[in-house]
Amino acid sequence: MNPDPDYSAAYLRVETDAGDGLEGHGFVFTIGRGNDVQAAAIRALTPHLVGRDVEGILDDMGGFWRELVWDSQLRWLGPEKGVMHMAIGAVVNAMWDLKAKRAGLPLWQLLARMTPEEIVDLVDFRYLSDALTREDALRILRAAEPGRGEREARLLAGGYPAYTTTPGWLGYSDEKLVRLCREAVADGFGMIKLKVGGNVEDDVRRMRLAREAVGSGIRIAVDANQRWDVDEAIAWMGRLAEFDVAWIEEPTSPDDVLGHAAIARGIAPIPVATGEHSGGRVMFKQMLQAGSLSVLQIDAARVAGVNENIAILLLAAKFGVPVCPHAGGVGLCEAVQHLAMFDFVAVSGSAEGRVIEYVDHLHEHFVTPTSVSDGVYHAPTTPGNGMEMLASSRKEYTFHD
Amino acid sequence: MNPDPDYSAAYLRVETDAGDGLEGHGFVFTIGRGNDVQAAAIRALTPHLVGRDVEGILDDMGGFWRELVWDSQLRWLGPEKGVMHMAIGAVVNAMWDLKAKRAGLPLWQLLARMTPEEIVDLVDFRYLSDALTREDALRILRAAEPGRGEREARLLAGGYPAYTTTPGWLGYSDEKLVRLCREAVADGFGMIKLKVGGNVEDDVRRMRLAREAVGSGIRIAVDANQRWDVDEAIAWMGRLAEFDVAWIEEPTSPDDVLGHAAIARGIAPIPVATGEHSGGRVMFKQMLQAGSLSVLQIDAARVAGVNENIAILLLAAKFGVPVCPHAGGVGLCEAVQHLAMFDFVAVSGSAEGRVIEYVDHLHEHFVTPTSVSDGVYHAPTTPGNGMEMLASSRKEYTFHD
Repeated sequence: MNPDPDYSAAYLRVETDAGDGLEGHGFVFTIGRGNDVQAAAIRALTPHLVGRDVEGILDDMGGFWRELVWDSQLRWLGPEKGVMHMAIGAVVNAMWDLKAKRAGLPLWQLLARMTPEEIVDLVDFRYLSDALTREDALRILRAAEPGRGEREARLLAGGYPAYTTTPGWLGYSDEKLVRLCREAVADGFGMIKLKVGGNVEDDVRRMRLAREAVGSGIRIAVDANQRWDVDEAIAWMGRLAEFDVAWIEEPTSPDDVLGHAAIARGIAPIPVATGEHSGGRVMFKQMLQAGSLSVLQIDAARVAGVNENIAILLLAAKFGVPVCPHAGGVGLCEAVQHLAMFDFVAVSGSAEGRVIEYVDHLHEHFVTPTSVSDGVYHAPTTPGNGMEMLASSRKEYTFHD
Repeated sequence: MNPDPDYSAAYLRVETDAGDGLEGHGFVFTIGRGNDVQAAAIRALTPHLVGRDVEGILDDMGGFWRELVWDSQLRWLGPEKGVMHMAIGAVVNAMWDLKAKRAGLPLWQLLARMTPEEIVDLVDFRYLSDALTREDALRILRAAEPGRGEREARLLAGGYPAYTTTPGWLGYSDEKLVRLCREAVADGFGMIKLKVGGNVEDDVRRMRLAREAVGSGIRIAVDANQRWDVDEAIAWMGRLAEFDVAWIEEPTSPDDVLGHAAIARGIAPIPVATGEHSGGRVMFKQMLQAGSLSVLQIDAARVAGVNENIAILLLAAKFGVPVCPHAGGVGLCEAVQHLAMFDFVAVSGSAEGRVIEYVDHLHEHFVTPTSVSDGVYHAPTTPGNGMEMLASSRKEYTFHD
């Protein structure tokens, strides 16, 4: 589906005149063409930032989110989806980066130390109330409050489970696939992921090779990147079922709530995972209501930033569905780990069945690159949201106009 | 929901070196801020047009649509929704304008004279096959074939039913509402529409006044413009039910398939109408599968142009749901009438329960303004898709950079 990605990002840097030298950084990950469209959309939000009192924004991040998402003229271009919505995400994330740096805390810790009341104030429950109310969210957050300290300590000591997509890209030779599978196990990963959907016989052969290479104790997920229609997905997964599939990811159109639900019924007990291309909170609400997914995949740069992802984490907790974030791309690992760790400490209170995607690519461009070893993400302790790229990388790779 | 619209359009004009002086025109309607983002998205599609052989594109409009929608890098910015998808719509529509002008036919007539096989070749059935296959579509189109000539003649003689939203904007005084309702009836409209959702007591009073003004023989629809959550919509419509409501339009988030379905069940037999902000064919498919709507509202400039709207017309025909297009804005009446008329002649074969929205606003800027009188749209006979603005209007109102 994505034969020629040219990994890119529309990048935003927010300066203030506070004199503290702190900046807020955020971006939208793209795969090439259209990055300039994404940059234009971020520029269209400038009036919501320039000349504003920064403390006023940082003290009411829920209100700031609503101001951007409910800008009635910009909302026409979605609403709440596509280019304009992702641009709002970059701005919201950049302000969270600034807020976390001012607090001297990594984002996950800043969020995990807020009170349940402060957290629900970040969330817009409009259009969600048939599935999740403010009171539901408060109950979830209060239930997780007693264990916060203990879980934060566990996280800092032991990290958060990771899985790797490195072995499984289409186009690798069988030899390379087997070698990378073995390396993943040797590196301590308890789960790997393979891309599927090109040719079913190839997929069967590659799954068999991968299963033989890693043994029965390692989980193997597969990812179809939206290639199939409903019936095709069910038939294809029937061929792969014998290999003990951890989940099938994006079997069809990311907007097809009912299609995903039909596939989930048709391939049970294989779990369906989706979300990296989801339109956002209203779509996730429906995916949970319809039983479309049993693994929910948030993305740090697809929806309207931290606030919307908190809404989605709360929805997942309400429905008892584990969140296993999408990552990779440019800086998505650096960014999304904060949300998973916040979820563990303060929302779901569990890492059971949860795992963050890891792709070992482009981390060298970030001020705080992810630290992954022994199959876990080590919790970042540097202040901020993780999205800040090195100034030297930004300078070297800027695509002018 | 849209308190301060500043009606705008990102406008596209396609020239060729054929020497025939014919141009293709298309646009995306916006309501102000963000129009420049939409323009940037159209510019991002230039490589798909400039330097290409125009006959190659016009002879394979289905292939051209797929080329744009499945551009893997641009697709990342949706997929199939928001700014990038609407930009594709402008390009596709502009090429249909050129094709119709070259054929010397209004778009509706050009489409309605294509064979069923040619029409299905325009449609991408990917992600639709669980609800509509190519064979289903062929069956629908072949069933409508025998009556095409007779219906074309009826359309040219008698027009297509219109309804007017002019009386019902929020903010009008009761006196103005009553006066405009009476004028609408005097002008021959069989249906009017009122905006609702601000204050329920105001809505009850306005509905009573409108119903008294028009009498029991005129249909009155109401439009909430996405204001409510599910339970709120059901309760609010309970208050309006006594006034014989023709439909409730956009009761909640346009992406909420399951929410619309819950509302439809909760307010039956009042019909639910939606679609002007729908993400496109995959969303409409689900709305039909779930029983979310019983009136389907296409928009000429929201989805990826003529081809996608044909897919949606075919889906509606498969499910036996009437299509009542959204219009208004800038040039949406001029554009969408072609799709409704094509539907009547060659797809559903019926105008029963169908009606095109009409707002008497900004038509003076178009080369072929809509002709509405006696409550009907008179079928346009000028070649093209209706989207071409007067050169003088384009010059006078261009917002530079």
